[in-house]
Amino acid sequence: MLDNLLSKIVPLDIDAMKVAQLRLDSLTKPLGSLGRLEEIVVKLSGINCSPDPRVNNKAIVVMCADNGVVEEGVSSCPKSVTAAVTCNFTRGITGINVFSRLTGAKLVIVDIGVDADIPYSTILDRKIRNGTWNIAKGPAMTREEAIRGILAGIDIVKDLKAEGINLLGTGEMGIGNTSTSSAVTAVFTGMQVNQLVGNGAGLSKEAYINKIEVIKQAIEINQPDPSNPIDVLAKVGGFDIAGLTGCFLGAAIYRVPIVIDGFISAVAALTAARIHPGARDYMLPSHGSAEPGTKAVMKALDMEPMLNLGMRLGEGTGAALGLQLIDAAVAAYTQMGSFDDAEIEQYVPQE
Amino acid sequence: MLDNLLSKIVPLDIDAMKVAQLRLDSLTKPLGSLGRLEEIVVKLSGINCSPDPRVNNKAIVVMCADNGVVEEGVSSCPKSVTAAVTCNFTRGITGINVFSRLTGAKLVIVDIGVDADIPYSTILDRKIRNGTWNIAKGPAMTREEAIRGILAGIDIVKDLKAEGINLLGTGEMGIGNTSTSSAVTAVFTGMQVNQLVGNGAGLSKEAYINKIEVIKQAIEINQPDPSNPIDVLAKVGGFDIAGLTGCFLGAAIYRVPIVIDGFISAVAALTAARIHPGARDYMLPSHGSAEPGTKAVMKALDMEPMLNLGMRLGEGTGAALGLQLIDAAVAAYTQMGSFDDAEIEQYVPQE
Repeated sequence: MLDNLLSKIVPLDIDAMKVAQLRLDSLTKPLGSLGRLEEIVVKLSGINCSPDPRVNNKAIVVMCADNGVVEEGVSSCPKSVTAAVTCNFTRGITGINVFSRLTGAKLVIVDIGVDADIPYSTILDRKIRNGTWNIAKGPAMTREEAIRGILAGIDIVKDLKAEGINLLGTGEMGIGNTSTSSAVTAVFTGMQVNQLVGNGAGLSKEAYINKIEVIKQAIEINQPDPSNPIDVLAKVGGFDIAGLTGCFLGAAIYRVPIVIDGFISAVAALTAARIHPGARDYMLPSHGSAEPGTKAVMKALDMEPMLNLGMRLGEGTGAALGLQLIDAAVAAYTQMGSFDDAEIEQYVPQE
Repeated sequence: MLDNLLSKIVPLDIDAMKVAQLRLDSLTKPLGSLGRLEEIVVKLSGINCSPDPRVNNKAIVVMCADNGVVEEGVSSCPKSVTAAVTCNFTRGITGINVFSRLTGAKLVIVDIGVDADIPYSTILDRKIRNGTWNIAKGPAMTREEAIRGILAGIDIVKDLKAEGINLLGTGEMGIGNTSTSSAVTAVFTGMQVNQLVGNGAGLSKEAYINKIEVIKQAIEINQPDPSNPIDVLAKVGGFDIAGLTGCFLGAAIYRVPIVIDGFISAVAALTAARIHPGARDYMLPSHGSAEPGTKAVMKALDMEPMLNLGMRLGEGTGAALGLQLIDAAVAAYTQMGSFDDAEIEQYVPQE
């Protein structure tokens, strides 16, 4: 079933992209002077198969799940924070509530594996299980569960597309998920764990060293196969990463542009790109998170963040700020005058 | 008169900044996890002498002027583009028109030295002269003209402050102004001209080499004194840079936060900081322009861009996108819940 869905992923529409670039070049500005905002418009046109891309109907999908590895003391927060913050998403007081309002994006909160009963009907119940197993002792989940997580993400994008959503952002909430993300990154990139792990704002030196050892042990015990991304996801990933991987694949299957958030989201984007390289074409970067592993993952994706804010809040807050930049790109494209309007001859570089 | 105004510049209000940081730390997020958005809120509080900074009334000041050095063939655009684009600012079709609408900022277009009659009453007439002299042959302007340009900028900020503007952006339009800006940067930083000059999108190799030679010659002939910023401005700067330098000084005098745009604006910010080091406290960075000199200037200011978009349009377009980030920072600060609201214990790093 997953293979069947993945076979629907096709390349971007080159013709629409060429028309968009020509239109950008006719605007009253030096050629190429909007930089990466121009690349955004061209990519959106390729995804939409039209040089008139719309981004007026946005949603941010936030995958929430617990991670068994927390019992190894890798986080200075108690596990219960995952459920508490997940519930607070319904109360409009979290960072992503504020930023999604700011950018006019609908917030789609998904319980894909929180270790608690979530008593809110506005939170999508796609719970695979009450948190993963401890990766330091064995696999996080079965291969079948990893695929279920991915399919849940794909399905959510399918529904949002049917609703008319034309731009997606991603986010997550899950205590312990920088540990799982670091493990997945180490396996995919071959980098050393200590190059990828941050000590956060409050992890003591002792706890930091322990976190590195736990991640190394998880890789050692599970022996994930780097050439088999679902194996990696199942053995050292998490339900949140699985669900987001599905969102990135779903965005490619159903042709919706999708914005990467920080470290965990970027790890899911990389997992999706390893499952189907064509998925990358549908992704847009946003910020470079303060987590050291983010740089390695973005490099593996051959992408560069647009925002340099040193944020590490998660929840999709960086992606939301990325949505603002995409709005700006489309606004420039659709509202700027052409050289004809401007009554000046086309000039090349502004000097 | 300038000295009298500059004596009003005082340090930021440390007490207000401390209160703002405490309030940030009480919000339901890991400590410091909003990264540079937190620094913005703290700085705004220090500027406003209040932990309740408002940024609901924005303006972007765009200084337009011509540069005599254009006769040396340093630009692939004809000089007439300065006047044409300046007039087009009144027609709502330029990049900064689009982005200022997007961010709700009032656009203040200033003719500080365009080499044409500008027949629009909505454009502020602060014309010093119809373009500077050619810096490759002698000084751009007299010292008295440089001071007049600075005072014009200070005065505009005074008026905007009186109108209730509480957040400023900066921008410029002036063919030839990357040449003057490169000259000023080389003098202030001691860097080699060829490390600072870009070849733009369309400058041929020959024209690029010529541009470097012209800038070197301007410095050689004028011998500006690096320890005397007004001397540097008068000899190898421009009216646009003088006016913007005044805006940055005015922002410090009248306590209004002010956002740096790209290369030319950053050069003016550096000039202002050399005239009065206290002015730097009132500045906020936005994007890192594609012009190679920008990095050197931002380093000299000890600032790092928040946006990495490879833009080089000028007009204040990067500053406008920076305003959006400041809005986001203040929205998070004022709308996020505290740990008490969130019914969870304070946690340190999200993991």
